[in-house]
Amino acid sequence: MPVLLAPERAPLLSQLLKAIPGGLVQKVVPGTGQFSDPIVAGLGALPAAGQHEASFIVHPKYLEQLAITKAAAVIVLPEIDELLSQAPVQPAYARVVCKHPYLLYARIAQWFDWARQPAREISVHPSAVVDPTAILASSVTVGPLAVIGARCVIDAMVQIGAGTVLGADVKVGASCVIHPRVAIYDGVQIGARVIVHSGAVLGADGFGFAPDPSLAKGAWGKIPQLGGLVIGNDVEIGANTTIDRGALENTVIEDGVKLDNQIMIAHNCRIGTHTAIAACTAVAGSTTIGARCTIAGAAGIAGHLTICDDVFVSGGTGITTDVTEPGRYTGVFPFATHSEWQRNAAVISQLSVMRKRLRKLERE
Amino acid sequence: MPVLLAPERAPLLSQLLKAIPGGLVQKVVPGTGQFSDPIVAGLGALPAAGQHEASFIVHPKYLEQLAITKAAAVIVLPEIDELLSQAPVQPAYARVVCKHPYLLYARIAQWFDWARQPAREISVHPSAVVDPTAILASSVTVGPLAVIGARCVIDAMVQIGAGTVLGADVKVGASCVIHPRVAIYDGVQIGARVIVHSGAVLGADGFGFAPDPSLAKGAWGKIPQLGGLVIGNDVEIGANTTIDRGALENTVIEDGVKLDNQIMIAHNCRIGTHTAIAACTAVAGSTTIGARCTIAGAAGIAGHLTICDDVFVSGGTGITTDVTEPGRYTGVFPFATHSEWQRNAAVISQLSVMRKRLRKLERE
Amino acid sequence: MPVLLAPERAPLLSQLLKAIPGGLVQKVVPGTGQFSDPIVAGLGALPAAGQHEASFIVHPKYLEQLAITKAAAVIVLPEIDELLSQAPVQPAYARVVCKHPYLLYARIAQWFDWARQPAREISVHPSAVVDPTAILASSVTVGPLAVIGARCVIDAMVQIGAGTVLGADVKVGASCVIHPRVAIYDGVQIGARVIVHSGAVLGADGFGFAPDPSLAKGAWGKIPQLGGLVIGNDVEIGANTTIDRGALENTVIEDGVKLDNQIMIAHNCRIGTHTAIAACTAVAGSTTIGARCTIAGAAGIAGHLTICDDVFVSGGTGITTDVTEPGRYTGVFPFATHSEWQRNAAVISQLSVMRKRLRKLERE
Repeated sequence: MPVLLAPERAPLLSQLLKAIPGGLVQKVVPGTGQFSDPIVAGLGALPAAGQHEASFIVHPKYLEQLAITKAAAVIVLPEIDELLSQAPVQPAYARVVCKHPYLLYARIAQWFDWARQPAREISVHPSAVVDPTAILASSVTVGPLAVIGARCVIDAMVQIGAGTVLGADVKVGASCVIHPRVAIYDGVQIGARVIVHSGAVLGADGFGFAPDPSLAKGAWGKIPQLGGLVIGNDVEIGANTTIDRGALENTVIEDGVKLDNQIMIAHNCRIGTHTAIAACTAVAGSTTIGARCTIAGAAGIAGHLTICDDVFVSGGTGITTDVTEPGRYTGVFPFATHSEWQRNAAVISQLSVMRKRLRKLERE
Repeated sequence: MPVLLAPERAPLLSQLLKAIPGGLVQKVVPGTGQFSDPIVAGLGALPAAGQHEASFIVHPKYLEQLAITKAAAVIVLPEIDELLSQAPVQPAYARVVCKHPYLLYARIAQWFDWARQPAREISVHPSAVVDPTAILASSVTVGPLAVIGARCVIDAMVQIGAGTVLGADVKVGASCVIHPRVAIYDGVQIGARVIVHSGAVLGADGFGFAPDPSLAKGAWGKIPQLGGLVIGNDVEIGANTTIDRGALENTVIEDGVKLDNQIMIAHNCRIGTHTAIAACTAVAGSTTIGARCTIAGAAGIAGHLTICDDVFVSGGTGITTDVTEPGRYTGVFPFATHSEWQRNAAVISQLSVMRKRLRKLERE
Repeated sequence: MPVLLAPERAPLLSQLLKAIPGGLVQKVVPGTGQFSDPIVAGLGALPAAGQHEASFIVHPKYLEQLAITKAAAVIVLPEIDELLSQAPVQPAYARVVCKHPYLLYARIAQWFDWARQPAREISVHPSAVVDPTAILASSVTVGPLAVIGARCVIDAMVQIGAGTVLGADVKVGASCVIHPRVAIYDGVQIGARVIVHSGAVLGADGFGFAPDPSLAKGAWGKIPQLGGLVIGNDVEIGANTTIDRGALENTVIEDGVKLDNQIMIAHNCRIGTHTAIAACTAVAGSTTIGARCTIAGAAGIAGHLTICDDVFVSGGTGITTDVTEPGRYTGVFPFATHSEWQRNAAVISQLSVMRKRLRKLERE
């Protein structure tokens, strides 16, 4: 559905593929008629793509969508191409044969995302409030009503969105995109090519309190959070995600980490390179997560744990001890109809008794 | 407790009920003394309502609160009215008899909410930054330091709160209320009479990445999110809720959907008409939820699922497969004292073995 | 690692301890050489602290870190001091002996946090939009592009961060720190010394709807939220946390409550004094939580419940009934490898049948 370029500005398929880096394409099978080297003005899902759009198929289970698509070109796996080449009637669309169709789709999407951008005006909007001691590269764009605090250092090509607030002494590396309405506390350090979505809060105080009975029975005294927050290169941080600064040392997000929306990373955590965490997951304080982990949505990782590299945590799973072996870990109560759940959940409170009774029977 | 109007500006009960649409009231039983047709200056809960306030009772289990209330008038079910009419001493308060007391209370609250509003000044605050290419109906109110991007179209009677940021090409239908500090990304389309609370982020990028080993082992390449976000009429969106734009096609929130705070709706989802979702629920990508569903708080719906119409998901429940039958679904681990939990949870890891041992005993 | 003061501005250990209130220190054992009364320019964790920093040890399990620390001084429990005093070689660092090392650390961190602050300029930034009817004490600081609505009353020494929006009739008590980009709705009342972090939304509408079939099948009519939100003294509210206003009466957060990030407190709740709630916990509507409770992260408390004083809820636990006895409560599905989980979770749906089969065997 999203036609991204007017057809008269759009490339031919052959031109488009020439512009895509990486040598991913094995071969192109021309389509029929107008689709022998079609205009590609955008990308669409198989069922929705129109005659000026390319699409892709990553799995044979979607083959029936292929039968009905109106797309001009489809990226296909070699094995699907082989299937199609043996069909009695050849499909109208052109076939782009590729071992990694999802990656090729990503690269084409990146190309369209770049091609559709209007030339960006490089300017600091006059309504933005930039402290005179802040240092901005000349190619930095600052949106309306953004605030940049004292002694910030903003590197080349950075875009700061409308209404975003940077405290004092914040460092932002080259080519970062900070979307509107982000809050970044004092002293946070951000690498290059980082994307931060709206509503994210970076470097707020960790949750640190010491019981202080001198104030009142049960009262808590605040532990000032003196550490910082350091974010590597190529990180993406989703909307309304929060990452707290460290209590004494730094909270660290390593290179290439991808964080979805509404994630909570507590103080003193370290998230390893290329780890991806889906929405609404919470990581409690002082936990270290290794490299290349995948944490699915709404998971919870307790505090003071170490999770090794290459761990996959399923959605909704709570991790409560160290994980020392790569692999997939899960722990969710299976859902059922409410009445079935009532029957079975009631037995949970008797499990240890049931085990004893079972043992007793076995001994008899 | 909330007296919303000064008593001298407040209506008599009879005047108030005349102003409420819908023919909900069956009859009014006058109270005693000053409450024969009392002044109603506000609404209160039964235990807290004062002599200038109306209250309501939706269930006989609250009858004892009725004995002590100081309210001037109480909305009651017909069966409660009958009980009361047979009592030896008639209560002081007036009784408004109605089959749907909760709905009548909602309508009276709506009346007071309207009556207490000061006349709203229609104006674009001089500190707001409105792109000259944006089109605002003359009855639009824009708060201080709001930002409205290029080519936005804002329909009649819309209120945009202070510090809210609209990207480019955003459409907002008539009579919407966008509260302060909302972020709306480029191209988001919003229907009429939609309410968006502070901190909501609409149309941020979905979480889309393709493994790209050419960058580094385990590295992710960004998939630009080229789809949009379309929100129907009469939707309400809670504080700090995030709804992502689609990857290729649109994320769609249909008419009448009500979303509480801190909800996450991932890219490519479709939420059906009049579905209500309570706080902190997460819906993963490409999931379709039917019409008139109720999802309680902190639930999680996995991605690529279809939930049919009229499904009720209990709080904290994780839905991991399609739901094809209306009804209530639940799946939470029942809580207990920690020591009891320790005893019983330990048995979980032996359940499949226990089942085998049980079978063996049965065969013997 | 965080050296907070230049060594030439930093105090000697003896001077520092004199500045700390509370008589917490039992004795000081001088270190060797330059550490007999060392300069203390900051605080660090044991493994990271340098020669100008103090550190602390709260538990004997960290004794091995003590062997390698380079800290100038370490806060130790009396029993650890005794161990050390019997060692053949005395450590280089000075020992500050104290029964409550964590509290002493908190107090020293507070001192450094105060000492490192540059003198704060008291001023209302010219870009802030302050309604002429708002009343601000002369010692109030208002950041750039903040918005303060009509008839707000802001007490002495309050700091309002950049981009924060206060609606009309908001009251903020003395010495509060409202960080940048907070949204506070009309009429919210905040006590003294409250800290609110970025992205928090205070006083948005509760999630209240009445089924209104007159609009459409399954449609919801809005119940205006006429109550308020009252926050006591010494409360801390984390980043992106949301607390809704009451439907009729007030939502109440009592004195000394500490709320972490991304917490959701629904309408009509009351949270008792000194209760601490960790990140991502959700409390549904009309629930009352007692004093001195500790709710760990990602817990969920259902609506219309009463939790008594001194309750500890474990992380990820869903509380679904009243809790009337102090103690620790837990309810999470234990995680395992995915394949183990598959085997055991599948048995959950047969638990009630298994119990019956067990009974039958026992009777035989």
